[in-house]
Amino acid sequence: MEYPESFQKLIDCFRHLSGVGLKSAERMAYDILSMEPDDVNEFINSLENVANIKHCSICGNLSDDDLCPICNNINRDKSTICVVCYPKDVFAIEKINEYHGTYHVLNGVIAPSKQKTEEDINYQSLLDRVSNDNIKEVILATNLTVEGEITAMFIANQLKKYPVKVTRLAHGLPMGAQLDYADEMTLFKALSNRKEV
Amino acid sequence: MEYPESFQKLIDCFRHLSGVGLKSAERMAYDILSMEPDDVNEFINSLENVANIKHCSICGNLSDDDLCPICNNINRDKSTICVVCYPKDVFAIEKINEYHGTYHVLNGVIAPSKQKTEEDINYQSLLDRVSNDNIKEVILATNLTVEGEITAMFIANQLKKYPVKVTRLAHGLPMGAQLDYADEMTLFKALSNRKEV
Repeated sequence: MEYPESFQKLIDCFRHLSGVGLKSAERMAYDILSMEPDDVNEFINSLENVANIKHCSICGNLSDDDLCPICNNINRDKSTICVVCYPKDVFAIEKINEYHGTYHVLNGVIAPSKQKTEEDINYQSLLDRVSNDNIKEVILATNLTVEGEITAMFIANQLKKYPVKVTRLAHGLPMGAQLDYADEMTLFKALSNRKEV
Repeated sequence: MEYPESFQKLIDCFRHLSGVGLKSAERMAYDILSMEPDDVNEFINSLENVANIKHCSICGNLSDDDLCPICNNINRDKSTICVVCYPKDVFAIEKINEYHGTYHVLNGVIAPSKQKTEEDINYQSLLDRVSNDNIKEVILATNLTVEGEITAMFIANQLKKYPVKVTRLAHGLPMGAQLDYADEMTLFKALSNRKEV
């Protein structure tokens, strides 16, 4: 016996979301079934709105307006750009309340294993900003994964022709780390980047 | 810093689904963001269709048509009704390929802790079926939880006035169970319902 077609389709839609298996997708579809019509409509409206969400015309971050609140804030240091892969990385860095420059959101990574190349990242406008906006430092804050490193190296290469300081997030042991649980690469980086106390 | 309003609303919608926490909801919202417009539209259409899905006019199961495929199947034994709480329970029982009667889907449970009473379950039409359709047996296949037991007892009470056999799923140890891991109630039921070999 099969689910009715419309119900099966909704299950399939949920399964396309990351981290959602068959059982979770079924449960979510049943949740929708038992929701009030108003709540389902709100869900539908949110999907429509997000499908049409804007990106900041300067940095590429998610934005309700043409400029995001950071690019639009005169108190931010416009001479420093922190380059991240995704909008969520902006939110992660903003949470620590330590960075007062601007961002550039690539909205992707270079991932050869997934046929993602430099065509798939928003970097041309970063070069424009660096060449026109008197930028002093570009901080490469892509993830410290293989894909993030490839992306950072690519951007660093592109920036070589500009008189701008290019930095990368520090590698090392995370807070609370136990040496015997750390992977070898992390331990190697932590040792070679050791600092005098 | 906050997410743009439309994006935050979508995160909130995902959080209303069962088993979805903040991080998962954020990840799902980002998934939507990176989907092709066609896929988002399919998602929206599925939600709309499921919000308008029909229930079988006899048994209350999900259905694309007025009658579900089981009530519409002349080969099913119409004199036996298996009473379950939710459509997913029908699919669970159909999977074992052992039951050839019909179903009755309550589409809810009696749950005093959640202010769910008999008003919230589809049982009146079950009584109509039992009194009019020459039903020989009603199998109470609600979950073996507190709420499922309360619901089963309520239905059993309602059926007392009809000349129909009422049965309940067997309690006992599940396949592969280890005695020292079984809870006391299960072990007690397994012992008192022991069968001669």
